[in-house]
Amino acid sequence: MIDFAMLLAQDAGFGTMGVGLAMGLAIIGASLGIGRIGGNAVEAIARQPEASGTISTQMLISAALIEGVTVVALILMFLK
Amino acid sequence: MIDFAMLLAQDAGFGTMGVGLAMGLAIIGASLGIGRIGGNAVEAIARQPEASGTISTQMLISAALIEGVTVVALILMFLK
Amino acid sequence: MIDFAMLLAQDAGFGTMGVGLAMGLAIIGASLGIGRIGGNAVEAIARQPEASGTISTQMLISAALIEGVTVVALILMFLK
Amino acid sequence: MIDFAMLLAQDAGFGTMGVGLAMGLAIIGASLGIGRIGGNAVEAIARQPEASGTISTQMLISAALIEGVTVVALILMFLK
Amino acid sequence: MIDFAMLLAQDAGFGTMGVGLAMGLAIIGASLGIGRIGGNAVEAIARQPEASGTISTQMLISAALIEGVTVVALILMFLK
Repeated sequence: MIDFAMLLAQDAGFGTMGVGLAMGLAIIGASLGIGRIGGNAVEAIARQPEASGTISTQMLISAALIEGVTVVALILMFLK
Repeated sequence: MIDFAMLLAQDAGFGTMGVGLAMGLAIIGASLGIGRIGGNAVEAIARQPEASGTISTQMLISAALIEGVTVVALILMFLK
Repeated sequence: MIDFAMLLAQDAGFGTMGVGLAMGLAIIGASLGIGRIGGNAVEAIARQPEASGTISTQMLISAALIEGVTVVALILMFLK
Repeated sequence: MIDFAMLLAQDAGFGTMGVGLAMGLAIIGASLGIGRIGGNAVEAIARQPEASGTISTQMLISAALIEGVTVVALILMFLK
Repeated sequence: MIDFAMLLAQDAGFGTMGVGLAMGLAIIGASLGIGRIGGNAVEAIARQPEASGTISTQMLISAALIEGVTVVALILMFLK
């Protein structure tokens, strides 16, 4: 019984390590993705200031797609 | 019986680590993909503002393809 | 009998880790591929708006090829 | 009883290591993402100083998306 | 009793190692991000000296976003 509890504890250790790495990698990905969209959006507005409304709408839609799937992943990881 | 439970526990530890890494990698991939589409879309709108409707439709279709396959993968990983 | 069960369990641990890594890498690949197609498609439409119908058809065909093979891979990994 | 406490301690060690790596990776990601947006924003303002209002608004929106998902991840990691 | 103290020490060892790596990675990330913003800002001012006020404001805002999330992460790591 004690041995079981021992390895259950060790289990949680590796699991938490994996969840931690996962969250870190997920944020790297999401940030690079949203960063690319946001960076290109401000450059695009500088090139065509009169299209800023359309550009910011498209920026938000695509950034929200990344945000959504990242939050889903974070919650699933946290439940794991 | 106790030994079996021990290693079943250790198993879950490595499994959770793998699932975590998988979710992290999946979000990196999805974000880079959607980020590239979104980034190019806002640049394309800046170059051709009058084509923004067609561009945003195409952006959504291709981004939704990535979003869909990522969500499928996240759910399959979570069930694993 | 107990030893066999032990190693079967340990096996499952590494197996799940491998499956997880595989799914993560698969999504990275698929996303980069579809992302490149979608990103270039919106740029192409901006350069030739009147060709948007043909461009979006070709985009969908090539993106669907990536999507299909990725979903097949995800299912095969999940059954593993 | 002592053995249990021993491995419970070792568990927390691996878990904390994972959480630490996760926070580090998350900050790398968030910084690269916000850095790209901010860097492009100041270049965009230099190219179109009269569009600085719109540019800074879009910069803030996309940077806030990264900031938000990173803080969520940091809190989830801390609770883990 | 001695073994317990030994492994409790080992625990703290892994935890401290993780926190150390985390702080190091966080500073790498924050520096790359703020470095990019600052580097682009001085280039932008060199191209448009009369826009230096607006540029430095935007530089400060985006750099402060990175600074804020990094400090939050450093504090959470320290409490871990």
